[in-house]
Amino acid sequence: MMTRLARTLPILDWGRRYQRSTFTNDMIAALIVTIMLIPQSLAYAMLAGLPAEVGLYASVLPLVAYAIFGSSRTLAVGPVAVVSLMTATAVGEIAAQGTNAYLVAATLLALMSGLMLIAMGLFKLGFVANFLSHPVISGFITASGLLIAAGQLKHLLGIQAAGNTLPEIARGVLTNLNAINMPTLVIGLGVLAFLYFVRLKLKALLMGLGLGSRMADVITKAGPVVAVAATILAASVLDLGKEGVALVGAIPQGFPVPGLPAIDFDMVRALAGPALLISLIGFVESVSVAQTLASKRRQRIVPDQELIGLGAANIAAGISAGYPVTGGFARSVVNFDAGAETPAAGIYTAVGIALATLFLTPLLASLPQATLAATIIVAVLSLVDLKAIRRVWAYSRADFSAMAATILGTLFLGVEAGVVIGVLLSLVLHLYRTSRPHMAVVGQVPGTEHFRNIERHQVMTSPQLLSVRVDESLYFANTRYLEDRIAALVAERPNVKHVVLMCSAVNAIDASALESLEEINHRLNDAGITLHLSEVKGPVMDRLKRSSFLEDLTGKVFLSQYEASALLSNGVWPQPQPN
Amino acid sequence: MMTRLARTLPILDWGRRYQRSTFTNDMIAALIVTIMLIPQSLAYAMLAGLPAEVGLYASVLPLVAYAIFGSSRTLAVGPVAVVSLMTATAVGEIAAQGTNAYLVAATLLALMSGLMLIAMGLFKLGFVANFLSHPVISGFITASGLLIAAGQLKHLLGIQAAGNTLPEIARGVLTNLNAINMPTLVIGLGVLAFLYFVRLKLKALLMGLGLGSRMADVITKAGPVVAVAATILAASVLDLGKEGVALVGAIPQGFPVPGLPAIDFDMVRALAGPALLISLIGFVESVSVAQTLASKRRQRIVPDQELIGLGAANIAAGISAGYPVTGGFARSVVNFDAGAETPAAGIYTAVGIALATLFLTPLLASLPQATLAATIIVAVLSLVDLKAIRRVWAYSRADFSAMAATILGTLFLGVEAGVVIGVLLSLVLHLYRTSRPHMAVVGQVPGTEHFRNIERHQVMTSPQLLSVRVDESLYFANTRYLEDRIAALVAERPNVKHVVLMCSAVNAIDASALESLEEINHRLNDAGITLHLSEVKGPVMDRLKRSSFLEDLTGKVFLSQYEASALLSNGVWPQPQPN
Repeated sequence: MMTRLARTLPILDWGRRYQRSTFTNDMIAALIVTIMLIPQSLAYAMLAGLPAEVGLYASVLPLVAYAIFGSSRTLAVGPVAVVSLMTATAVGEIAAQGTNAYLVAATLLALMSGLMLIAMGLFKLGFVANFLSHPVISGFITASGLLIAAGQLKHLLGIQAAGNTLPEIARGVLTNLNAINMPTLVIGLGVLAFLYFVRLKLKALLMGLGLGSRMADVITKAGPVVAVAATILAASVLDLGKEGVALVGAIPQGFPVPGLPAIDFDMVRALAGPALLISLIGFVESVSVAQTLASKRRQRIVPDQELIGLGAANIAAGISAGYPVTGGFARSVVNFDAGAETPAAGIYTAVGIALATLFLTPLLASLPQATLAATIIVAVLSLVDLKAIRRVWAYSRADFSAMAATILGTLFLGVEAGVVIGVLLSLVLHLYRTSRPHMAVVGQVPGTEHFRNIERHQVMTSPQLLSVRVDESLYFANTRYLEDRIAALVAERPNVKHVVLMCSAVNAIDASALESLEEINHRLNDAGITLHLSEVKGPVMDRLKRSSFLEDLTGKVFLSQYEASALLSNGVWPQPQPN
Repeated sequence: MMTRLARTLPILDWGRRYQRSTFTNDMIAALIVTIMLIPQSLAYAMLAGLPAEVGLYASVLPLVAYAIFGSSRTLAVGPVAVVSLMTATAVGEIAAQGTNAYLVAATLLALMSGLMLIAMGLFKLGFVANFLSHPVISGFITASGLLIAAGQLKHLLGIQAAGNTLPEIARGVLTNLNAINMPTLVIGLGVLAFLYFVRLKLKALLMGLGLGSRMADVITKAGPVVAVAATILAASVLDLGKEGVALVGAIPQGFPVPGLPAIDFDMVRALAGPALLISLIGFVESVSVAQTLASKRRQRIVPDQELIGLGAANIAAGISAGYPVTGGFARSVVNFDAGAETPAAGIYTAVGIALATLFLTPLLASLPQATLAATIIVAVLSLVDLKAIRRVWAYSRADFSAMAATILGTLFLGVEAGVVIGVLLSLVLHLYRTSRPHMAVVGQVPGTEHFRNIERHQVMTSPQLLSVRVDESLYFANTRYLEDRIAALVAERPNVKHVVLMCSAVNAIDASALESLEEINHRLNDAGITLHLSEVKGPVMDRLKRSSFLEDLTGKVFLSQYEASALLSNGVWPQPQPN
């Protein structure tokens, strides 16, 4: 009973064994993640088109909820870049940025996504996420990274522009180039250069100065916070607001009272599709990070429990004026590397963000938006994985075309269209492939009981025996192809008296394929040829026994192809000849 | 060159070898088919909501076009019940019955369907039809038969009613029961009883009286013509038109001038979906009849050429004021049984129908519609195949649910919704099945080199070696499931040092699965376990060589599982133990 409850509430498991040393490690990790998360939560809220404080709200209660319900020990939940972009796209279609409706819709989106994730967890529907193939996901993330970086240009340049696709963004930027604000550009490029220096050089430099690796790491992670502090100072001292530099502006101190967002059913209908996509993308990304980290410490994550954990986090975002959250890649890795041992680190991070929301927000009013934009660009360009594109191209043209369609769809038609196109194309390509299965005529490898393709191996065959291995499950999409191929193979071999279908690769035979097999059996019989099967798998055999096919079959079902070959060519007919 | 042309124009092949005896056989078959086709073409035109003469037009030029381009020797093309129903549904959505727009739309539908079929033939897209599984087709035909029979009730009862679904038809009939026309009902039930008598009893009776089987057959096929003649006579003598019996009415003698129908692009857009469905359903039905008949005489049909043949027939219908046609099941069987040897029989049938259109149409004005309705009901109820439903239920619940969804969808939502629901459900069920593949831990069958499931067979295993056979191609939908299962199997077996994935049933490994295999290899390595593959197929191996997986693999790739087992358990480790 305890274990079952502990499976639903993982906190009961790790919470009971919580120790002082664990506490210390979790606290250190939480401190580093908090330092990293403050500028990120502000930046991603801006990316989502929301006021900065919404990013902070989304980084408190959701972290606590995930700590209670999630199954990963080290996943760091909160606002992330891709989901923020998807939020901006979805909400932007039904409300204008800056309006109350926009805020309400973003919060509602989190609530709906949370409910969907929990429903998927309860009904064990996590497998739906499997239909997002690796190339589609990877292409989507890369394209989103490019799209987000392009979208931040306007903040770096200090111009007004809008757009959810690359052509829209390019048009927006190009037509407003005359409105560039130089002080903004200086801040933006300065922060960008500083952050790249911190990311690429600082750690080595600090260690060269004799600092320990861990300490050097902590200082490196604080880079964005330094940039935030420095530009706030510069903006205040130089009164850059008056120079036309866009600032974050006044942020309300404290928290809104938790409660459900206003629910409008037209809005619910309009957000249902995007909420589902956000849920699936967020889940897939989060699970793959969690799984990678868990396997490094021989821990296991439970995908269905992850759905519950992420669902709870999004519901928490939905009732605390936040917006959709999920597990972040960079942040989780930092949490793991900093030594976090339990989800308690997430709770401490939430406390850190809550304290910042209560006490630091007055300082943030003078923060230039260009600083946040530079933070975002540095973060998302690391998502762009061009090597993965090259790898997939080398491996499979079909996978590559699904990936390319996803990338182009995302860049030119938007995030939702990109994912949908990629998923549909990968399904169609998969179905097309299985509708024309590979079939090999096989013969015996001399000196073994093994049978392989006569075109690839030196094997023995008998002229009266045609053995065909079908390399695919037989189902409606390929049964007519099977009929055609068998007819053609038999037509080429006038001496054939026996056909053996070697079924070692046939994992299922559906009702359509059963009818085709009956038809093949019948037609071969009319031509004086006996049909046999070999190496039929247990589950397939069980199924065939429910039909009258085995009674109608003119030949036999052999346990192995060797047995079939021995009986059908060694016994009554001449010895097999080398081919 | 000649053979290539003959492949595109099959008439060049059989036409060169045409002989006197063939001519006699074709003529006799054509005569019988003509007798059968006259009432059918009138009846199916009525079913499609079109004037009777349109059925005749659709039975002349299309037959000639198919004879030139089609690859089946004995397929009888023309108006058929299911396609007529689909036409009524599609055209009824954009025009009212009895209007000129309705006529134009039906002809346009034939033209569009013809162009689509030819395009599919030229681009070798016939495989698309494979996605209509047997259970979906069979369920669709059965449901259409029921729907058509129900739809004819109004003609039998002499009432006005409309509707494309069972509930609509039932409501139409029930709310008009007080308007039943008794003379119509008498004619309708009389013809129904007569036709059933002819179909079920007459042949045996005639043969009992000493007639030859073939002659008895011809007389039996003439049953509907007798019913037509008798009821025309009764309607004329008794002046039943004045009693409120609906008659066919005046039919224009002769033919309209051939030409393109008026093309309206809004109409084209509205008809595109239905035209595609009609093309696919017509093609599948036609090909299965043609294939069955061809195999009885060791002939072959060429599916892509059939697309061209049916496409040409529909274009012919589209330029001669006809409506969509395809190969009819009952009619083709009659043609075959009556001894037709070449498609010339189709040309003679066309001549017969043309003569009837020129000279017999004045007689048809007094034909009661109830006679045609009774003809339709008798014809379509033979399409209802309840045994197929039971067979599919016994064989596979997944196939049955696709079939049941198609039947219920067709009856309650209409023909288009029915097909679409069935196709989508069968795809989803297929994907779901392959996303949770069967995996078996295997051991050696004693005394053989064969490896089977340890749960089904008495086999030998070694504690240090875990051999897993994956019964499915590895692709994006099942790679995460694979990772989970391998992890679970290894966790249960603390002594395992080697894992062999037996890939005899793995027909493809896509990019997603490749990443998962790399991940599995990496994780097993971390746990001190070596990963090997065995029985990897040629095409899969070729593909793997394009990636770095084989270099990263900690173990080896074995030609056979036996080899793997011999090396990994016989050599360095103890002998395998009986399980």
